[in-house]
Amino acid sequence: MGDCSVGLAPEMQKTVYVGTFVHSKSLQELDICERGVIGVDVTGKIAFIERHTVDLETILKEHEGWSGAKVVKGHENGFFFPGFIDTHIHAPQYPNAGIFGKSTLLDWLNTYTFPTESAFSLLSKARPIYNRVVRRTLSHGTTTAAYYATIHVASTNLLASICLINGQRAFIGRVCMDSDLSPPTYRDASAADSVSSTVAVINHIRQLDPHGTLVAPIITPRFAPSCTSHALSLLGALQREHDLLAQTHISENPSEVALVKAMFPSAKSYADVYDAAGLLNSKTILAHAIHLTADETALVRARGAKISHCPASNSALTSGVAPVRALLDEGIDVGLGTDVSGGYSPSVLEAARQAVLVSRLRSVILAGREQCKERGGEDQAERAKLSTEEALFLATRGGAQVVGLADRVGAFEVGMEWDAQMVGLGPLVGGGASGGDADDQDAAAVADAETTSSAEVEASPVDIFGWETWPERVDKWVFNGDDRNTLAVWVKGRLVHKREGVEL
Amino acid sequence: MGDCSVGLAPEMQKTVYVGTFVHSKSLQELDICERGVIGVDVTGKIAFIERHTVDLETILKEHEGWSGAKVVKGHENGFFFPGFIDTHIHAPQYPNAGIFGKSTLLDWLNTYTFPTESAFSLLSKARPIYNRVVRRTLSHGTTTAAYYATIHVASTNLLASICLINGQRAFIGRVCMDSDLSPPTYRDASAADSVSSTVAVINHIRQLDPHGTLVAPIITPRFAPSCTSHALSLLGALQREHDLLAQTHISENPSEVALVKAMFPSAKSYADVYDAAGLLNSKTILAHAIHLTADETALVRARGAKISHCPASNSALTSGVAPVRALLDEGIDVGLGTDVSGGYSPSVLEAARQAVLVSRLRSVILAGREQCKERGGEDQAERAKLSTEEALFLATRGGAQVVGLADRVGAFEVGMEWDAQMVGLGPLVGGGASGGDADDQDAAAVADAETTSSAEVEASPVDIFGWETWPERVDKWVFNGDDRNTLAVWVKGRLVHKREGVEL
Repeated sequence: MGDCSVGLAPEMQKTVYVGTFVHSKSLQELDICERGVIGVDVTGKIAFIERHTVDLETILKEHEGWSGAKVVKGHENGFFFPGFIDTHIHAPQYPNAGIFGKSTLLDWLNTYTFPTESAFSLLSKARPIYNRVVRRTLSHGTTTAAYYATIHVASTNLLASICLINGQRAFIGRVCMDSDLSPPTYRDASAADSVSSTVAVINHIRQLDPHGTLVAPIITPRFAPSCTSHALSLLGALQREHDLLAQTHISENPSEVALVKAMFPSAKSYADVYDAAGLLNSKTILAHAIHLTADETALVRARGAKISHCPASNSALTSGVAPVRALLDEGIDVGLGTDVSGGYSPSVLEAARQAVLVSRLRSVILAGREQCKERGGEDQAERAKLSTEEALFLATRGGAQVVGLADRVGAFEVGMEWDAQMVGLGPLVGGGASGGDADDQDAAAVADAETTSSAEVEASPVDIFGWETWPERVDKWVFNGDDRNTLAVWVKGRLVHKREGVEL
Repeated sequence: MGDCSVGLAPEMQKTVYVGTFVHSKSLQELDICERGVIGVDVTGKIAFIERHTVDLETILKEHEGWSGAKVVKGHENGFFFPGFIDTHIHAPQYPNAGIFGKSTLLDWLNTYTFPTESAFSLLSKARPIYNRVVRRTLSHGTTTAAYYATIHVASTNLLASICLINGQRAFIGRVCMDSDLSPPTYRDASAADSVSSTVAVINHIRQLDPHGTLVAPIITPRFAPSCTSHALSLLGALQREHDLLAQTHISENPSEVALVKAMFPSAKSYADVYDAAGLLNSKTILAHAIHLTADETALVRARGAKISHCPASNSALTSGVAPVRALLDEGIDVGLGTDVSGGYSPSVLEAARQAVLVSRLRSVILAGREQCKERGGEDQAERAKLSTEEALFLATRGGAQVVGLADRVGAFEVGMEWDAQMVGLGPLVGGGASGGDADDQDAAAVADAETTSSAEVEASPVDIFGWETWPERVDKWVFNGDDRNTLAVWVKGRLVHKREGVEL
């Protein structure tokens, strides 16, 4: 673990975090507290929040029992931000991140995905990959992930152990697929096998983490075309019996939608396939939801199911652009997913960036439809755009709603758990100095004197000049930031990642 | 300059580069030479290329006078790649990178751009920003850039000096804007001022770099709406008189197109405004070209003008998705531009990634038009997709065509100049070892033993597992790589950037 203090039973101490705090107040609005103090108790819960700090010592005295607490100061040019929640990621596909050619969903599954996943029958294959994906996502600030594993019980159990040991909050899904869409070498023997293997994982995880403090099982039928109706119904029953989350895919790609129609001729719609199986409910996460009909959207909303928006994947696989604004307007809870490896990046920050960008292309598409008179409104096109603030809400509070943890993570509130990242945006360019008045000097000579070293551009991919407002700093982070700006990460008060050289 | 050996007159020595070389053979195809040697002479030109190296010493002996040459070995897990060519970047806007809200072109100019650029009347404001943008783009592998500066002669000259000192190949454009679209505090006094100020910059740069080895002036009318017809005609004449490149914008945004129609009522089209001024020719770079009519596209093609595709900017500002495939099919030369700060990123690698991604959304848009019967063809939608190979062609050889340097840079060929980057993709995950056979061990214990340190995920944003083909490694670089993977950069044989800790 390098110099990170993590493990199954680390010692915890009262800690106060001091600096600038940014989190979502609402979908549209960030709450930026410039000089705050947050006290986190030994159970990892936020005990108090002070918003206007003049003197830390006075604050510590005012809170009984906190005067000896550890003090962690935020980066002078950054802020604490809630940990990201990745509501859709396929851990075993991580080695394929960035490799997808010009494929679309169904050929991509056969070309890249099934061969990769089938190798996870061997723990020795699974281990280095699962270790890397957990360390990698933590380094990008992902404090909670809803993982799809593979059909293999042993390596799925291993993924749960790796999350627990590394301190990442995770939902671990043993993938169920018993239809003949999947190759004979990589599918469940029967619907009963889908269920019994899932139960084996549920039992194992409940033994590992009896109170579900960090890791929990999640019922995971891959998607309708890879499951029989029988398996879907049994898994729906299993979800109810164990009161667990479930996750699956819906309406990612027009060919997939057509396939579902052909495979489930008696179903009224794709969403109805899940509804009929009892799988469409308030504890179900649906990935993608790009091509839902109005009736399906209404059904999803009525059942309280959640949606994971995966913009990087949807562009990469030419799936389309999800109508996020319309889903939000319906009152459906939406979070972000990296969808590795349909999505090329393990970073939720990249997913947030892509959510903003593709929402503008959604706007272009809607403006084009207006031209073809299908439906109306420049307003609709304009409204389709997501702001940075909205994308960050989806990445945190929205994600927490999707995975059923909205009362525990995704924001900074008293009683919530300290799942957080320390963001630093690097030193000010030129130290923030005005540069003096050298306007009459020879231009070439002036240029020479000011040439910067490699180290200065390597410190951070973001350049801050000193005049930026806090919302502008947040924008710069979202558009040019990366894991180099995530200096440290905590889950439930425990330090789970720290970049080399960062002093806490 | 840290430990980089650059400057106005550095000593050069014969150097042989040894390792894997990747460059574009054609638009569709990368040429990957796994064990090659390239000899670069003291003038920075490629003297020889050996494709099948067994023994370096033998090769050096076979080439007379090369046995004492400096040897630079490529990264064991990477390759040499041509330097990137950024065919469209606004240097003074760099501080705003990532800040654009929900604005579109015309309000973005007034809100963010004009206020920022007008401050460049002071060299003390310009200097730290121009220094940073040149160092930053070099660190991303940009060996050639076509810069827009501002209307200010002194700071535009400073930008030229900074490029020369840092060793970046650059076209330096003093921005011309004499219409009343621009605020009174930031515009040319007259068309004559546009010309005389441009001439002042041309003369200065020709004095700085008499043979145009690295920096050259470029005629830069901002775009039709910010120039009078008179200024455009004078600048067209100036381009012919001095035989220079010219650069401007075209058809980025529907409102802009409408504005041009209103401001130039006698012109047949937006493209015709430039054509009438003599500015549409084979030495002209047109940025964006999203909304060209078929007639305009034919005119651009007939004149041999070039197009800079700026996908990150076009998504960010809701401008649309350029029909890159259609432009290429016409036979028009296309390169990539970051368009900082309409584009949020100074990285051409990011522009290449976005080019691939938005081409898929262009495909989605075309498929949608098919549904509304405007025009035909699933084929057209499928063909719209750009491959990684094609995006990398646009970033290198395509860009070289656009800036008129196709015979000198953008690829590795004997007689061309050594503008190159050394790409390293980090160590293999788990050292590439198979991991042994531990399948019967307790899963939790196995997980514990394998937990990796922060340092391992910090070394590179790309994870290579060892089984990837070279094209797959290139894909991984394009989709998850960044400046951390650009270990060193050369322009005309001269080292201009090197990451800390890299030994050459």
